[in-house]
Amino acid sequence: MSTSSNAAVTILGLGLMGSALAGAYLAKGHATTIWNRTAGKGDGLVAKGARRAATAAEAVEASKIAIICVLDYETTRAIIEPLAEALAGKLLVNLTSGQPEQARAMAKWAGERGIDYLDGAIMSTPPGIGQAETLLLYGGSRALFDAHRTTLAVMGGGSVHVAEDPGSALLYDIGLLGIMYSTLAGYFTSLALVGADGVSAKTFTPYVEKWLGALATFLTSMGQQVDARDYHGAEATLAMQAVGLNHFIEAHERRGIEPVPIKYVRALVDRAVAEGHGADDLPRLVEYIKKR
Amino acid sequence: MSTSSNAAVTILGLGLMGSALAGAYLAKGHATTIWNRTAGKGDGLVAKGARRAATAAEAVEASKIAIICVLDYETTRAIIEPLAEALAGKLLVNLTSGQPEQARAMAKWAGERGIDYLDGAIMSTPPGIGQAETLLLYGGSRALFDAHRTTLAVMGGGSVHVAEDPGSALLYDIGLLGIMYSTLAGYFTSLALVGADGVSAKTFTPYVEKWLGALATFLTSMGQQVDARDYHGAEATLAMQAVGLNHFIEAHERRGIEPVPIKYVRALVDRAVAEGHGADDLPRLVEYIKKR
Repeated sequence: MSTSSNAAVTILGLGLMGSALAGAYLAKGHATTIWNRTAGKGDGLVAKGARRAATAAEAVEASKIAIICVLDYETTRAIIEPLAEALAGKLLVNLTSGQPEQARAMAKWAGERGIDYLDGAIMSTPPGIGQAETLLLYGGSRALFDAHRTTLAVMGGGSVHVAEDPGSALLYDIGLLGIMYSTLAGYFTSLALVGADGVSAKTFTPYVEKWLGALATFLTSMGQQVDARDYHGAEATLAMQAVGLNHFIEAHERRGIEPVPIKYVRALVDRAVAEGHGADDLPRLVEYIKKR
Repeated sequence: MSTSSNAAVTILGLGLMGSALAGAYLAKGHATTIWNRTAGKGDGLVAKGARRAATAAEAVEASKIAIICVLDYETTRAIIEPLAEALAGKLLVNLTSGQPEQARAMAKWAGERGIDYLDGAIMSTPPGIGQAETLLLYGGSRALFDAHRTTLAVMGGGSVHVAEDPGSALLYDIGLLGIMYSTLAGYFTSLALVGADGVSAKTFTPYVEKWLGALATFLTSMGQQVDARDYHGAEATLAMQAVGLNHFIEAHERRGIEPVPIKYVRALVDRAVAEGHGADDLPRLVEYIKKR
């Protein structure tokens, strides 16, 4: 398995993301074939040198690498399943969002038909595509990823192989986006809090940016406690944090704000303390989130 | 207002945090007087050169700067109010946790008695005290902070003045810790998710660290939308995010995990979409959190 530095690629699906992917390959001088299930898309890409295929089969014939990014896995399967023969011996890169189980099933299907398969997740909006720091996660064969690393990196310089499990990219994607939504729920709640006392987002946000950086450095030791399931605490026990959490909730409620994420943490802390874990550290809470 | 580089300091309160503060001053060669409401604390500090005062009044007499860090504001007031005369013309630095309103009331009380007053928040656990990057926030007179900047930086190299509002340090503290708890709720939920598929915290956490760094870079533009109350969307509208959120929730539920923070965001998104804001960006959600 090896690729030239300017491998020809085929892009299936020309939504906002698919179009951005094709645009990145065109910008780097790759022969780029495009196709979309409904007509009328891709004029701008054709103007930049893309070749528009009349059918998906014709599109797949044009390159040794096909990249698909469409609405969901149902759509992916409807497009890909009729192309099994045309794809045999080629690389199919699926960047469609979905469940890890769907990625695993698709990898199995591809493997049984002699199609090389990588399943990826794009951790960016379309404007980030093609940039040096943009993160894409890939699950599946590491050897396959390594062989095509240069071509894949055109879509985002931060492209990484996660694990051999073809569902791993979507699994990590869901985990990371869940953290993003949780963090943003906290950020928006805090903007409401400081805003009630006349502090603008512009004034407060630089502190948040610094704080998230500091917070990231705590996670390694917290993760070690979770892996070891040993939550023995020292200077910031759950019993102590419960006191602080009540103060934080009070501060919000005085301002007419319902701090839902903080109340959720307090509820978990209360359960842990009630079950005799008041002297433990915060990562004990994972035990109350995972299936028991 | 000016201080020598090795100003004498008095530390009132020798809990874990107060002891760490005194230890930092001793380590930097400051004449350090210590006092605790109940006896039997501070032997280790005395061994390192601290002078133990018999009474709070005696402790305050010994230095031009008194730093108090005790359980709560009730305790602070019980200690400080009898010392009004002894503190007149000196600097009182209050690092006790509490509500912004309590800091404002204390600043008013101090101002009326000719006591210079700064109200701070320590964004660290005791082991971080005295380190170069440790963040302490201060509210109150900026001129006062600037005059004592070197002495204050002994407790944490990242000491910053936040605003003239003496309640601002505690306000920002609550806002930042709220974001921390929200982010950790998300982190723990995601550890449960990936753990269900056999991925350890050790494997997953490096991605989280990187991701939080990337996330921090989105906040400035989100904050601008909140300040302008203009949430006009482009490529990641609420209607589009609702679809993704449902997939993320499904992935957790399939694994027996209740993704409370994500469901909270979905509920806010649903409200916004129902009220006709489906084409807006995510920061629209602040409008559903703040008091209406």
